[in-house]
Amino acid sequence: MSTTASAPFERPAEFHVYDTTLRDGAQQEGLRLSVADKLQIAGLLDELGVNYIEGGWPGANPNDTAFFAAAAAGEVTLKNATLTAFGFTRRVGGTAADDPLTAALRDSGAGVACVVAKSHDQHVVRALRTTLEENLAMITDTVSHLVAEGQRVFLDCEHFFDGFRDNKAYALEVVRTAMDAGAEVAVLCDTNGGMLPTWVGEIVAEVAQATDARLGIHAHNDTGCAVANTIAAVDAGAMHVQGTINGYGERTGNADLVPIVANLELKYGWQLLPAGSLAEATRLSHAIAEVTNVPPSTRQPYVGLSSFAHKAGLHASAIKVDPNLYQHIDPELVGNDMRMLVSDMAGRANIQIKGSELGFDLSDRDLAAKITDKVKEREADGYTYEGADASFELLLRAELDQLPEYFVARSWRVFTQSGTDGVTDTEATIRLEAGGHSTRVVGEGNGPVNALDHALREALLPVYPVVDHFELSDYRVRILDQGHGTDATTRVLIQTTNGLRTWTTVGVGQNVIEASWEALSQAYTYGLLHSEVEPAS
Amino acid sequence: MSTTASAPFERPAEFHVYDTTLRDGAQQEGLRLSVADKLQIAGLLDELGVNYIEGGWPGANPNDTAFFAAAAAGEVTLKNATLTAFGFTRRVGGTAADDPLTAALRDSGAGVACVVAKSHDQHVVRALRTTLEENLAMITDTVSHLVAEGQRVFLDCEHFFDGFRDNKAYALEVVRTAMDAGAEVAVLCDTNGGMLPTWVGEIVAEVAQATDARLGIHAHNDTGCAVANTIAAVDAGAMHVQGTINGYGERTGNADLVPIVANLELKYGWQLLPAGSLAEATRLSHAIAEVTNVPPSTRQPYVGLSSFAHKAGLHASAIKVDPNLYQHIDPELVGNDMRMLVSDMAGRANIQIKGSELGFDLSDRDLAAKITDKVKEREADGYTYEGADASFELLLRAELDQLPEYFVARSWRVFTQSGTDGVTDTEATIRLEAGGHSTRVVGEGNGPVNALDHALREALLPVYPVVDHFELSDYRVRILDQGHGTDATTRVLIQTTNGLRTWTTVGVGQNVIEASWEALSQAYTYGLLHSEVEPAS
Repeated sequence: MSTTASAPFERPAEFHVYDTTLRDGAQQEGLRLSVADKLQIAGLLDELGVNYIEGGWPGANPNDTAFFAAAAAGEVTLKNATLTAFGFTRRVGGTAADDPLTAALRDSGAGVACVVAKSHDQHVVRALRTTLEENLAMITDTVSHLVAEGQRVFLDCEHFFDGFRDNKAYALEVVRTAMDAGAEVAVLCDTNGGMLPTWVGEIVAEVAQATDARLGIHAHNDTGCAVANTIAAVDAGAMHVQGTINGYGERTGNADLVPIVANLELKYGWQLLPAGSLAEATRLSHAIAEVTNVPPSTRQPYVGLSSFAHKAGLHASAIKVDPNLYQHIDPELVGNDMRMLVSDMAGRANIQIKGSELGFDLSDRDLAAKITDKVKEREADGYTYEGADASFELLLRAELDQLPEYFVARSWRVFTQSGTDGVTDTEATIRLEAGGHSTRVVGEGNGPVNALDHALREALLPVYPVVDHFELSDYRVRILDQGHGTDATTRVLIQTTNGLRTWTTVGVGQNVIEASWEALSQAYTYGLLHSEVEPAS
Repeated sequence: MSTTASAPFERPAEFHVYDTTLRDGAQQEGLRLSVADKLQIAGLLDELGVNYIEGGWPGANPNDTAFFAAAAAGEVTLKNATLTAFGFTRRVGGTAADDPLTAALRDSGAGVACVVAKSHDQHVVRALRTTLEENLAMITDTVSHLVAEGQRVFLDCEHFFDGFRDNKAYALEVVRTAMDAGAEVAVLCDTNGGMLPTWVGEIVAEVAQATDARLGIHAHNDTGCAVANTIAAVDAGAMHVQGTINGYGERTGNADLVPIVANLELKYGWQLLPAGSLAEATRLSHAIAEVTNVPPSTRQPYVGLSSFAHKAGLHASAIKVDPNLYQHIDPELVGNDMRMLVSDMAGRANIQIKGSELGFDLSDRDLAAKITDKVKEREADGYTYEGADASFELLLRAELDQLPEYFVARSWRVFTQSGTDGVTDTEATIRLEAGGHSTRVVGEGNGPVNALDHALREALLPVYPVVDHFELSDYRVRILDQGHGTDATTRVLIQTTNGLRTWTTVGVGQNVIEASWEALSQAYTYGLLHSEVEPAS
């Protein structure tokens, strides 16, 4: 059933997987990386096993300069990857030896300098405002200076594809000049991202014929073809692929490195990353998203939360026969999971599979039908169990009479005020029974839900010390039935972690705090249940 | 500078743009469409000018049955598109004439039935559990019955590409059987989404050679290549492209129809949609996202909020020379805009361009530098102006001493409680001065921010009646510096609309309600400013 097929040719002996998340990825709107963030991401990229990590542009950006200094000081240890520093060719009319930015590249401590040069004649004349000859001299001078100083050099040919169409001879001359000066790779960049795969394939093949350069590809996703453009370049002879994790980058983003590598490993059968690394891709992609704080797309190829999720009732029945009938690869190969979604489009088969995933026997048709009806009824009220497995398990247990009662909340209130002094305070009070005692506890917080969380934790702690390890890791709100104003129903999803396991609960209500309270108390109940704590009577 | 180039061949005389948002798109995890949602989306798709709108699977899903009934009753009027109903071939061993689902297709009122059939031998035997011959008989019977009843028929060949690799002769036989029975198009489906563009191109070319069928393509994005796979099929002879708006769909989603059409129109120069429609693509894509309530990706090709946004200081200087140096198409062609981002990576040039966009002269270098410093300082505190143009304008006006004071809030408080009766109430009180009077107003709401919004509106209404038209349309919260617990800084973005204009403001604070209050009061100030209301003294 698999679509694996042989590659059009053997894997090139030397092949580079080059990550530019820390430099080009950081150009994404809304994405900001501190030095600590960059160090952490570099460690995760190294775990993934990429060959090169472009760390930034030293000298041009204080943050990037500090990152290279920290890396040189040993604040991150790279086992697989070589650190690369990005920078421009030297200034017009200057010399590389005297250029402060070239010096910053040279002194960055990075083993490789990735030098970007103009390769589009119009950009040389109109944006750089110099002559075509001076641009070539800038390349020769910068590359040969860095090579003489002992640094390896890759050359990014900016706007290469547009330039090739505008003035082929000049674009090729840029590649030849870089190679003559000692560059190891000429990376052909689709800087504006307007290419389609057949065009990329044709141009890369022509460059491969016309020069003896080792070629690389750097694609952006403006036509929705960044991954395919990269593969097309590889098919045409490129042996170096640049991209970013999760496709971060300016505008529509850079080529997403994970599907590129997964396609080449799983579809072509090429080994690119260290053995076993691809199976960490889902975890590492999500871990990097935690650092960038950009919510990952659930539909991301290979690593998305939904990428191997099935909701159609029809598929669900066939999946019982053989999961491989309905998936293009085994999700474990990229560290992802096949998931059956509980939804109002689902029939009994889904609920049964989901139940057995959680360890409950729902083979009884009447029982399964009753639970399916309950799910449909709750979903009609605005609940969703697709993203809230923990709440689904609590619902299932309630229906099966297997849900212990750990605590009963009698009432709660929460109060926020800002006075003329400009100081804002939030305070929550909860009245609750647990372990045979009734308590009244007050909690502070940086907002109503945070204060309720603190008060609930405080109230439960004497009876269930394990709650000390529970931590709210995500909180999302959605207004359902928009346009109903204050009568709108609100759905809250809360993600909680205890360091070992992460779970999501859902609450629904007309009041967002009420919905939050429901999700919050379910989060504690589920956490207690899976800490194998006995309900205190 | 443009990458437009001629197509590999002329646009086929008959070419179908086929949308399946309402059927296959609705399989996406977390996406649920009511009948009213479907009618609204159908109207928007028709405005975009697609040729076919697949409305759902009548008979199999009550929602879909109701949608076709509503459409037949004239609840949506289609000017461009033909409505299509989706359904399976008749049951194993039955007859199409007696099959209730075939009857539902026939009686749906849709001009075209899109019948899906198995074309992969293993799926016939293992999932459908019948013989290869019976599967062909099911195709012949279903197609010829519907054609005889006066319906046009397209045949979706499920799992075609995997099936072609497994048993080429049988896959081709499915196509020939459908055409012989009267189907107009054989749509080759990459159901599991595992294909790469060169493979799709080769297989489509082979099918085009081996049959005289009009071919279509239906791709999924599991390898990150759905758009490219679709284009590859078109290059190889497909004349019918299926996809969904915003790439909605199960797992990694279906092929995104907008970049497919934009690529073919803008890169190949083919006219596919009615003249002028492509320039509505950004608006329509976002309008459909409003209905589905799935937040659109800012990085979506062509229509994303960031798709023509630039933040690098270097690009900013060159963009002053000629914007086309840095964009692959004129964004107006798809109804999008080039945007300069205000960010801490930006230099003075960005701020100057942004200022002049807003109508302020910042050509004075010292003034521009002072404002740039202010922006950097605020961004260091956690503010972001990339997504909050309204707050940037307020900051600019404050620095230029051009910010009128419409009101002064002295203090506020907000209170939520849930008693033993289970009823939850939220109440906010604000003390505020406007129009020379001091007022104290109380507001109710479905949560703290909603209650504050109501109280603020109530307080301002007597002085500025125009606030009655202001409506909070979106509210987003992000915790900055995660891991700092209750000391974490929170950033709130509030989107407000008055029906004519939509604006976004930002607030930052350690308390989420405090940050919300800041964004909320800025939202009212900006709205008053642009309603050309004089501050009441």
